Amino acid sequence: MMIYLDNAATTKPSEAAFMLAKEYVTEKFYNPSALYKEGFAVQGELKKARSALLSKIADETAFELIFTSCGTESNNQAIFSFARRGNAVTTMGEHSAVLSPFAELKNKGLAEARYSPLKKDGSVDVEKLLALVDDKTTFVSVMHVNNEIGAINDINAIAKKVKQKNPRVIFHSDGVQAYGKIPVRLAKEVDLYSISAHKIGGLKGVGALIKRKTLVIAPYLIGGGQENGKRSGTENTFGIKQFEYAAQVKFADLSKDSERLKSYREKVWNGLDHDVYVRLSPENGTPYILTVSAVGLRGAVLQQMANDKGLIIGTGSACSSNAKTRFSRVVLACGYDEKTADGVLRISFSPETTEEEIEKAIEILNEIGRDLKRRMS
Amino acid sequence: MMIYLDNAATTKPSEAAFMLAKEYVTEKFYNPSALYKEGFAVQGELKKARSALLSKIADETAFELIFTSCGTESNNQAIFSFARRGNAVTTMGEHSAVLSPFAELKNKGLAEARYSPLKKDGSVDVEKLLALVDDKTTFVSVMHVNNEIGAINDINAIAKKVKQKNPRVIFHSDGVQAYGKIPVRLAKEVDLYSISAHKIGGLKGVGALIKRKTLVIAPYLIGGGQENGKRSGTENTFGIKQFEYAAQVKFADLSKDSERLKSYREKVWNGLDHDVYVRLSPENGTPYILTVSAVGLRGAVLQQMANDKGLIIGTGSACSSNAKTRFSRVVLACGYDEKTADGVLRISFSPETTEEEIEKAIEILNEIGRDLKRRMS
Repeated sequence: MMIYLDNAATTKPSEAAFMLAKEYVTEKFYNPSALYKEGFAVQGELKKARSALLSKIADETAFELIFTSCGTESNNQAIFSFARRGNAVTTMGEHSAVLSPFAELKNKGLAEARYSPLKKDGSVDVEKLLALVDDKTTFVSVMHVNNEIGAINDINAIAKKVKQKNPRVIFHSDGVQAYGKIPVRLAKEVDLYSISAHKIGGLKGVGALIKRKTLVIAPYLIGGGQENGKRSGTENTFGIKQFEYAAQVKFADLSKDSERLKSYREKVWNGLDHDVYVRLSPENGTPYILTVSAVGLRGAVLQQMANDKGLIIGTGSACSSNAKTRFSRVVLACGYDEKTADGVLRISFSPETTEEEIEKAIEILNEIGRDLKRRMS
Repeated sequence: MMIYLDNAATTKPSEAAFMLAKEYVTEKFYNPSALYKEGFAVQGELKKARSALLSKIADETAFELIFTSCGTESNNQAIFSFARRGNAVTTMGEHSAVLSPFAELKNKGLAEARYSPLKKDGSVDVEKLLALVDDKTTFVSVMHVNNEIGAINDINAIAKKVKQKNPRVIFHSDGVQAYGKIPVRLAKEVDLYSISAHKIGGLKGVGALIKRKTLVIAPYLIGGGQENGKRSGTENTFGIKQFEYAAQVKFADLSKDSERLKSYREKVWNGLDHDVYVRLSPENGTPYILTVSAVGLRGAVLQQMANDKGLIIGTGSACSSNAKTRFSRVVLACGYDEKTADGVLRISFSPETTEEEIEKAIEILNEIGRDLKRRMS
């Protein structure tokens, strides 16, 4: 039985939510756009899911929710709808689902792309971010929780400051690693917020873009006019309901889970051999992620060694495995050297993580870290 | 127990395929981009699904398959990747997932949008289509099976003729109503082909874009570089495997189902009161769709009356219910008048449809048609 501590890459879907949502496959399979009572009923159930998922973090009178196929689609829609003129500002800590569209803004000549540096703890340097915002800034995107280090950005405060400097800016935040994990109520200055199901026990293939109601957004997928014209394509009813049910549980236990996982995170750090590992994750970061570096060793090698002993951990963002870059851009942006970046291991928890797993993980990490260090010297 | 004859809108997902794919939720839930053996194993399973779905209709040495979230996304990616200069040609019979992006080409000034008229049977008028193709044509899109009437376009022959006229044209076909239902092997002149899972017992939220291997396509969702850089976003592993399993069954029984449903289609037509209903679907169209019109009556009213008696049918494309247009564009494009367009009913079958259901449906359709006609006169 493997110990799974790569929950920031994806979580094991909630089987209870899966079985609850199954009726959208066996009985309520109708097309939600169909103009008969069975279709209307499914559309009504989507509305309930929308409201349940949205109300957890935002005021339903001020915000609305568009279902998408993933966090990446939510980010693409936000960026390509609004970052169309002047300049757009983001941070060097973003996920590639924000950084790649920003690169595309530049490639296509749509807008100048500006990148704010990070502080050592992985959070954005707010003063430097604000210095990049000027009269020509149309769009600002700042992630809520950094997926590689776990740093939390106070997006409500940042959005307020950005709008004080330029009230016409559209402010977006990638909340994929925050939703269902970190308590938040979106301030009115946050225009757009991306979330994803599979990071909190939902299925892959389901995401959403939360937006301020009065903001007019362009659809990114164009066709039959589903999602009130804001996202075409037959709605993934089963996946959406499974997301709703999985989120209900996560939000009900959010504070309790948070406390417990914070204690696990600290327990892992305290249990690790500090002659092998240095800590990158800040104490005030998400309880769900502990990122360390075995400086001078290769994280990818340690990851395989851990795997051989029954422990699954990450090295950086799984999503950037396709990029084939050896060093994490984000870790370098925090000011660490290449040796540190090369040794990065990301240990990420879920509410299902047990104390026994934590203890075994510490044991394995120390064993392989010491072993590799000995062999390398 | 309702009789469901709106299978062109969506099908009841295969529960057997659902249960088979469930292991991608309970055990093989790992991120397919993760760099450890559990991630590689899931990536391998995606590869198998890709090959299984592709090989059914195309030569794997010449074509490849990109997973997307739906047919709409596949169409959007095809159109916005290639219809970027000069003019782009399509037909008046297309689904809104093609027509709306074509409208956007014009709105954004990317390319001139040209629309070929249809013949009375709902198929494209090939001579008129070819007349629209010239030296400046960059992209042509012709649907395989019309979703409202059921007409089949011989896309291989059309693609050949289009390329004879202009070999630089990229040829796309929306195969959403054809895949798994109509026998086809893609000719080398077809560059791109869109398919969707939920029309053949798969789940909503899963689609694919099949493309000629040597064709370089731009990603439409940009981020972590999944799908070999051609479609970012964590792969919907569960939905993809359920699609694979559902398709295996559909393709195994394709000819047999086709014969039987053709006999059902004719049985329904022969059983209907021809003083009330006229037939729009051609005999050489898809066996899965019988479209009729109760000329002078309202299809939407008949749809509700049928529903009250336990029969679920469509009026046109469920996807265009959001458009709130009273008349089907497609039916008008076939040359029918508004009275005929207003009376349209679409009866669409699935392999699960039974002879008893067919007989009961005929009874209900005749009863409500005669009843409404009596009341209207």
